[in-house]
Amino acid sequence: MNQQSPHEPADLNDPDLRAGAVAAARGGRPFDRLVVGGQLVDMVTGQIRPADIGIVGPLISSVHPAGTRLDAAEVIDASGCFITPGLIDTHMHIESSMVTPAAYAEAVLPRGVTTILWDPHEFGNVHGLDGVRWAIEARRQLPLRVIPLAPSCVPSAPGLEMAGADFDAGDMADMLSWKDIGGVAEVMNMRGVIDGDPRMTAIVNAGLKSGKLVCGHARGLEGADLNAFMAAGVSSDHELTSGADLLSKLQAGLTIELRGSHDHLLQQFVEVINGLGHMPQTVTLCTDDVFPDELHFDGGLDDVIRRLVRDGLKPEWALRAATLNAAMRLGRADLGLVAAGRRADLVLFENLSDFKARHVIVNGKSVARDGQILSSLPRIDTTPLHGSVKLSLLSEADFRLPASGKRVRVATIDRPRFTQWGEVEADVNDGFVVPPPGSTMISVVHRHGKADSRPRVGFLTGWGEWRGAFCTTVSHDSHNLTLFGGNVRDMTVAANAVIAAGGGMAVALDGKIEAILPLPLSGLVSEADLSDTAEAFRGLRKAMEKIVDWQPPYLVFKACFGATLACNVGPHQTDRGIADVVAGTLMETLVL
Amino acid sequence: MNQQSPHEPADLNDPDLRAGAVAAARGGRPFDRLVVGGQLVDMVTGQIRPADIGIVGPLISSVHPAGTRLDAAEVIDASGCFITPGLIDTHMHIESSMVTPAAYAEAVLPRGVTTILWDPHEFGNVHGLDGVRWAIEARRQLPLRVIPLAPSCVPSAPGLEMAGADFDAGDMADMLSWKDIGGVAEVMNMRGVIDGDPRMTAIVNAGLKSGKLVCGHARGLEGADLNAFMAAGVSSDHELTSGADLLSKLQAGLTIELRGSHDHLLQQFVEVINGLGHMPQTVTLCTDDVFPDELHFDGGLDDVIRRLVRDGLKPEWALRAATLNAAMRLGRADLGLVAAGRRADLVLFENLSDFKARHVIVNGKSVARDGQILSSLPRIDTTPLHGSVKLSLLSEADFRLPASGKRVRVATIDRPRFTQWGEVEADVNDGFVVPPPGSTMISVVHRHGKADSRPRVGFLTGWGEWRGAFCTTVSHDSHNLTLFGGNVRDMTVAANAVIAAGGGMAVALDGKIEAILPLPLSGLVSEADLSDTAEAFRGLRKAMEKIVDWQPPYLVFKACFGATLACNVGPHQTDRGIADVVAGTLMETLVL
Repeated sequence: MNQQSPHEPADLNDPDLRAGAVAAARGGRPFDRLVVGGQLVDMVTGQIRPADIGIVGPLISSVHPAGTRLDAAEVIDASGCFITPGLIDTHMHIESSMVTPAAYAEAVLPRGVTTILWDPHEFGNVHGLDGVRWAIEARRQLPLRVIPLAPSCVPSAPGLEMAGADFDAGDMADMLSWKDIGGVAEVMNMRGVIDGDPRMTAIVNAGLKSGKLVCGHARGLEGADLNAFMAAGVSSDHELTSGADLLSKLQAGLTIELRGSHDHLLQQFVEVINGLGHMPQTVTLCTDDVFPDELHFDGGLDDVIRRLVRDGLKPEWALRAATLNAAMRLGRADLGLVAAGRRADLVLFENLSDFKARHVIVNGKSVARDGQILSSLPRIDTTPLHGSVKLSLLSEADFRLPASGKRVRVATIDRPRFTQWGEVEADVNDGFVVPPPGSTMISVVHRHGKADSRPRVGFLTGWGEWRGAFCTTVSHDSHNLTLFGGNVRDMTVAANAVIAAGGGMAVALDGKIEAILPLPLSGLVSEADLSDTAEAFRGLRKAMEKIVDWQPPYLVFKACFGATLACNVGPHQTDRGIADVVAGTLMETLVL
Repeated sequence: MNQQSPHEPADLNDPDLRAGAVAAARGGRPFDRLVVGGQLVDMVTGQIRPADIGIVGPLISSVHPAGTRLDAAEVIDASGCFITPGLIDTHMHIESSMVTPAAYAEAVLPRGVTTILWDPHEFGNVHGLDGVRWAIEARRQLPLRVIPLAPSCVPSAPGLEMAGADFDAGDMADMLSWKDIGGVAEVMNMRGVIDGDPRMTAIVNAGLKSGKLVCGHARGLEGADLNAFMAAGVSSDHELTSGADLLSKLQAGLTIELRGSHDHLLQQFVEVINGLGHMPQTVTLCTDDVFPDELHFDGGLDDVIRRLVRDGLKPEWALRAATLNAAMRLGRADLGLVAAGRRADLVLFENLSDFKARHVIVNGKSVARDGQILSSLPRIDTTPLHGSVKLSLLSEADFRLPASGKRVRVATIDRPRFTQWGEVEADVNDGFVVPPPGSTMISVVHRHGKADSRPRVGFLTGWGEWRGAFCTTVSHDSHNLTLFGGNVRDMTVAANAVIAAGGGMAVALDGKIEAILPLPLSGLVSEADLSDTAEAFRGLRKAMEKIVDWQPPYLVFKACFGATLACNVGPHQTDRGIADVVAGTLMETLVL
């Protein structure tokens, strides 16, 4: 089995390896592998030309005219293929695909993705440093080059929510001292940085001191705030909201991790880049969060490239962003180019429109062919991730909101995604608030054993009419058990099904479970392979359509997973109450 | 006095500095300096737009719309100017300009050059590790950011010549362990690397092991040789011979240090880049060797840019190569962009055609204005460089070539630059060879005290008719005392003048010195400032025109300094005899 070297990139400095590559380049010995008959897509010049590639160990030894060498232990036929460097995803969370790192690697390697920058933010939120350590170990034996980053904002809103962990600057410095860690993962607490909050400032400074990457999340930032965020030392962004935002961030000098997850924005991005007349070297590509069914059926970074090209970006520009530009961002001179002396990470694509990978080579060895991984990848023990949902079963009474009198005014959270404060009158019956008509109940239950687990309950408005309930332990970023529903009965049924499964998601209607996806690893990830997980997730989506009518673009299934993200502007329900990060306030009860 | 920080780039990680920059960006405190009214040339997008730049200490705090901020301790008027990042020269030898690092800095800073990669190859050849140490110290207090590299090929042809030093892989590893050293300087012994010679292979491997840059010199390499050279780990080249060579090296994936020294090639380079339709991110710019008069009257890297633009390259492309591309090559995320959070190295150019710099800022402080350095730069003690010409005065008899009989056949070195073996008959008179008609005498005298200093004498053909003699201790790379002449009388006069001066160059005619440039520091460099050195060098050029008729492109003044470069293909006179690097032979006498 091919393995990621624990000593990258220094593994390429082995004198015997270099001597062998030099000798093979000169014809003094055969290559280990020789890729013949393909068209090389040159990331430097943008040209496409016939070229054969000789490989010795993990090194590219020679890139030479087609057919001029035939001596190799193994010859790989690339006829009809376009050869590119392996794709590099510069910002992502494996947990979002709800599978293990090994299953993720099995999914993306056959698609041509050979390197990813993984922010194991969700494992960190649930398990703390142990979660990050598990993440590092889980990817060590994989042929997918996984560069883990240190999660910077655990919890997302300190004091307003309780996650399973709390990383301060000392924890950050600890993680950054580990050789495997590539830098600071997306700094999401933008206001903390801009306002000079001591905690976030110390975290960013720990990143600077390490000399490693300090990656950002600069959603909506512009003008003085954007300058302040960058002056602090944050150097990238993937939270682009429009073509104009992309242009402004490029002009500001941020490295862009251009994200595929908001498909409707890609056309604007392409127009901006085409308008510049060149692909800026500061543009890289990323996936960020990809649901299991999307990953399984559509792909990972390959799908971002496919859709950018669909929207009019030149294939060689999209590929350059995903290879050479990314390698330069990472400071990895061994990656990003098909050139003698660099690492032999190669993809043979059948064409430059649907980017179907016929053959994928990592560190000089074949890992996938015709969309299939050549052998299943090693898993490490998942025991440390079990038992993360530290909750007893709940009863309907747990979701009742006590109040006195006959009518009360209650605070509400209005609108999905871009939330704002609302207020309505509600009846009181038998000492409990009757959910106001047209509202959706939300409840967040602390599940990490770090605080009391009394369900906190709130009312959402503008979330449509819910006929049943949905429960999930995937709930950014604290991943407390989170419920949405039209009635407490279905909420209780859904919650208990998820608790019994040790984590996951469930949809309940009329007192019965309609669909369930157990995620017993950390309450985030399945033990199953991607195809099974994808199918189960599809089942959940379908069941959800029975219980609520989505109204895109904001009231969408995905919004459920970000509804408690308390670091975002506006009111958010958390396991502690209703938090407002800008005001810095936490309402323990919504009865006014 | 502004100083280069000894801790770059970590100096930017100071928490107080960052906090100040963040606060100033938000308007919470004034900037230290504010550049207003200029047009920013955006290295990422290629766009030119009005922007003001706020600076705190050495950091860029803010890049914001013109006129929106006025609060600063100092306001710098950039009206009518184009603002760019400081220029970065990715390969050069200060010694070639025959002035000290301080004098060099005084020359190029006012022209907008703020960072140079210096290969102190000549100091290394003369003084060994002590020369490299002197180089490191000499630049430490300069505002010019000088990144020294470790000379890789001292001597250029081991066994065929004697320099003042001999750097093996152990010396290389020693230098590379020094924090100040940025990497391995141009690996010139290409054949050694390609052929797997143990010495050169170990030197390149020491570079790889250090994790620092391994820079190249890939003159004329193509095909299998180029692949082998790159497979060994060498990653750049500046020895481009044509537009086709540039394209081939770009396609190979080398980083290009595009050199201005061969003006007639620039038009071809521009055509190739314009043909690609974009400036590849692997193209950087360099000066390599610039004579003192050229530096004084024409400039350094600014002149390379000026001439590329003259030849049709877009100014923003030339500037991108000299800034952002170079910074990425160096792995310096603090350089190369005018962006919040980066180092405040700025140039205010009056226009984008003659690139006259009105104002130059390094590390946030003004260092030059209107072409003048604001204060003269500190020099360190030059005592260690004195007394490097370890020779007694010579007599005419020292240049005679003994032979018996009446006529002999002698080997000759035919043609400047691209030398080849020749053979002629010569008379013998009184037991000494009479120089064959039409030949030029060359003599190389070991001057480092490491071997005998008996002059070795050879005959050049195709070097024109010499009416006097020229002596120089600048003679690549060993810098032994080297003489060219038509008669031994003038040769002796020139040699003795140079020896008496402790090194330098002299032209003699009719038994008298016509011109002399003393270079008492290492026999390479003057104590004088650039303007005096430039004038003296001009005087030498004029004197040379009296004693020989040049026939460009090969028989040019410059050819004298490279005539003994024994690592090049073909026969070369050295202090040991006539060397042939390909054959690996050394002829002790040219009498056949």
